[in-house]
Amino acid sequence: MVAPLKVGIAGLGTVGAEVVRLIETQARVLAGRSGRGIRVVAVTARSKAKKRGIDLRGVEWVKDPIALATHPGIDCFVELMGGAGDPALSAVEAALNAGKSVVTANKALLAKHGLKLAKAAEKHGGALNFEAAVGAAIPVIKTLREGLAGTGINRVYGILNGTCNYILTRMEQEGLSFAECLKDAQRLGYAEANPSFDVDGHDTAQKLAILASLAFGTKVAQSAVYVEGISSIAPEDLRAADDLGYRLKLLGVAVRTAKGIEQRVHPTMVPKSSSIAQVMGVTNAVTIDGEGIPPITLVGPGAGGAATASAVVADIADVARGIRANPFGRPISHLRDTKKAPMERHEGGYYIRLLARDFPGTAAAIATRLAEQKISIESIVQRHPNGGAAPADGKAVPVPVILITYATHEDAVRRALAAVQRDKVISGRPQVIRIEKN
Amino acid sequence: MVAPLKVGIAGLGTVGAEVVRLIETQARVLAGRSGRGIRVVAVTARSKAKKRGIDLRGVEWVKDPIALATHPGIDCFVELMGGAGDPALSAVEAALNAGKSVVTANKALLAKHGLKLAKAAEKHGGALNFEAAVGAAIPVIKTLREGLAGTGINRVYGILNGTCNYILTRMEQEGLSFAECLKDAQRLGYAEANPSFDVDGHDTAQKLAILASLAFGTKVAQSAVYVEGISSIAPEDLRAADDLGYRLKLLGVAVRTAKGIEQRVHPTMVPKSSSIAQVMGVTNAVTIDGEGIPPITLVGPGAGGAATASAVVADIADVARGIRANPFGRPISHLRDTKKAPMERHEGGYYIRLLARDFPGTAAAIATRLAEQKISIESIVQRHPNGGAAPADGKAVPVPVILITYATHEDAVRRALAAVQRDKVISGRPQVIRIEKN
Repeated sequence: MVAPLKVGIAGLGTVGAEVVRLIETQARVLAGRSGRGIRVVAVTARSKAKKRGIDLRGVEWVKDPIALATHPGIDCFVELMGGAGDPALSAVEAALNAGKSVVTANKALLAKHGLKLAKAAEKHGGALNFEAAVGAAIPVIKTLREGLAGTGINRVYGILNGTCNYILTRMEQEGLSFAECLKDAQRLGYAEANPSFDVDGHDTAQKLAILASLAFGTKVAQSAVYVEGISSIAPEDLRAADDLGYRLKLLGVAVRTAKGIEQRVHPTMVPKSSSIAQVMGVTNAVTIDGEGIPPITLVGPGAGGAATASAVVADIADVARGIRANPFGRPISHLRDTKKAPMERHEGGYYIRLLARDFPGTAAAIATRLAEQKISIESIVQRHPNGGAAPADGKAVPVPVILITYATHEDAVRRALAAVQRDKVISGRPQVIRIEKN
Repeated sequence: MVAPLKVGIAGLGTVGAEVVRLIETQARVLAGRSGRGIRVVAVTARSKAKKRGIDLRGVEWVKDPIALATHPGIDCFVELMGGAGDPALSAVEAALNAGKSVVTANKALLAKHGLKLAKAAEKHGGALNFEAAVGAAIPVIKTLREGLAGTGINRVYGILNGTCNYILTRMEQEGLSFAECLKDAQRLGYAEANPSFDVDGHDTAQKLAILASLAFGTKVAQSAVYVEGISSIAPEDLRAADDLGYRLKLLGVAVRTAKGIEQRVHPTMVPKSSSIAQVMGVTNAVTIDGEGIPPITLVGPGAGGAATASAVVADIADVARGIRANPFGRPISHLRDTKKAPMERHEGGYYIRLLARDFPGTAAAIATRLAEQKISIESIVQRHPNGGAAPADGKAVPVPVILITYATHEDAVRRALAAVQRDKVISGRPQVIRIEKN
């Protein structure tokens, strides 16, 4: 019998406590699957006194994450403290440099320092596993790293943030504003008091950078991701999407183009018939387009203590079984530099919503400006407020006009809309949302 | 540098040829992911002369699958011949007994002889990988075997046969009969000339037996699966499902119950809001309910040369990386005997469609018979043909009545309907379809 894998856990919040519990209750199954036992031998956390409902008798309490990471009695360091900086960074580095394997759920750390950490893992021979960092228990890391090992990837995209999808789902289903839904999400604990990290797309960007590296062999870099959040989305955009056969989702998209790998996070119109369009509420989903095969979509909980702990324990079991994958699927020397995609060169269809001051004249002006940029219009919808009745005061009321374009270049759209604004035929700024076809 | 993994492939149909092609075109990525090269060194197939569009120069042609399986020059035997019997069975056994690793896409072989083969793998130390056997490129085997290693599973269910889902989708969307859709499926190549293996549920049963073993640690046994096919489904069942908020799918379901593991394949009503209900056409999907976590659903192509080859190559890459998982996730000594679930003890909701000879009297009779068996009715729908107009000839026309029950026992439903038939208040046999809640 091989000696059991000795695990040290830094961070005993909901996830950490659930990991300790699973390792104990699933001991026999884990040993059967891994070929050896798994034992938590040491832990560290901010408060030793806190009640956690787990049995830590016989487990050594270490004062400091670095001391735990380099503890000679552990084989595998499990980092569940979070945060892109210290103590997580130093502790994970110290563990890898000491030749230990590391399991972490820390997307921020990986998006910022993943390359450096992967180098340390490669140099010293430890594993660096992070299934829980993207999509919690959804096995997307394993699928990209191992399950599609021999298949070229053309595109990976997904709903990677439950808060945003919850807000967009409620806006769509109940016709509410972004602000109202955000407030509810905060009340229900689905959004933080400071919601910017989620609703402005940064959480999605961190996860996307990790997926892009695994799918395309790019050096993981959050800074290479173009990011737009959902705060500008209005209920009328969701209504219009529905009318036109689309749903609106905050997507992270990484795609191979003729100009390189494009990584972007933005509100996106997706066809209602796509798998990703069916994903509602806090649920997450990732679609992978492999070369020559129909899309594969993985759907499930993207957060939550039990779902995250499930992925962490599976990663620990892989360490116990002796699996050493390259952290980002390839040797460091194979990873390529990543550049931020210039969005003005993005190609695709566009949804454009404008407020026309005077419909017939505006339609003509818009058509001219789009034609100048060689943009073809797939559909145009114009609905008079009040069912088209003339306002009581006789004044012209701005009329919402919605355009769907065929695939074009983003810089063409931007130039056309700048010209429309200079023409002074619309009120306010146009709403522009990219379309992603399946 | 470790020596490359030397692969022998038996069977060079669409899948085999694509495996050869992928190993060649993806050589660098595969070597990066596996830490060593992968090389096809020998093959065997029925016809050497057939044009396959692949370069087999430098590859040894072996006359006989057994000779290939035991060839001293190969490390990994890839079985793509198919069939539960010989030559596949003998060849896979011979390879495993010679200590080689085996990759196969052969669900029939695994459902029938999986336990024996897993024993041989365990005894001699080779891997036995079969990701392609269920859901082609959908990584469901890896997810159950590794991704959820530490999470107890309560239920696994899915759409595992594209032919049946294609037929049910078209019946639903176009109001066609089973026979019409089957004919179209045959014409388009989605169904075999002899469709029984697919439409009677046997293909689904083989795949389910494999999933159940991985999820619950049962000894894989197709004979333990209760099976019902889709040939009795009528367009009115699909219409009624739609009215009542359900979709009709052929599901394979393996579920932990108080009485043991239930494995069953049958037409099933699933709530329209479930992920599985969104899966249309030839697409496959599997939902996994883990303890304490929301469902995880994996959706994708369940068949096709490229999708199957993708999974086969990923399995080969795992062999190259030195991964040795227990074939069914646990040591043989941990696997439990499997009994066929007695369906009369199945608990759940039921959809019942009857043809009432005379509605008011029949309703009373049915209500009485159901009440006798303590079955509660969730909803009852009765639609007069011809919008309720009396038939021109004055004769009573049988009226379709649809009932949805709350959860009950199947034997209670069977007893109640037998009594209704004895009462002679209905025409023909009742249609009974189980409901699966998410």
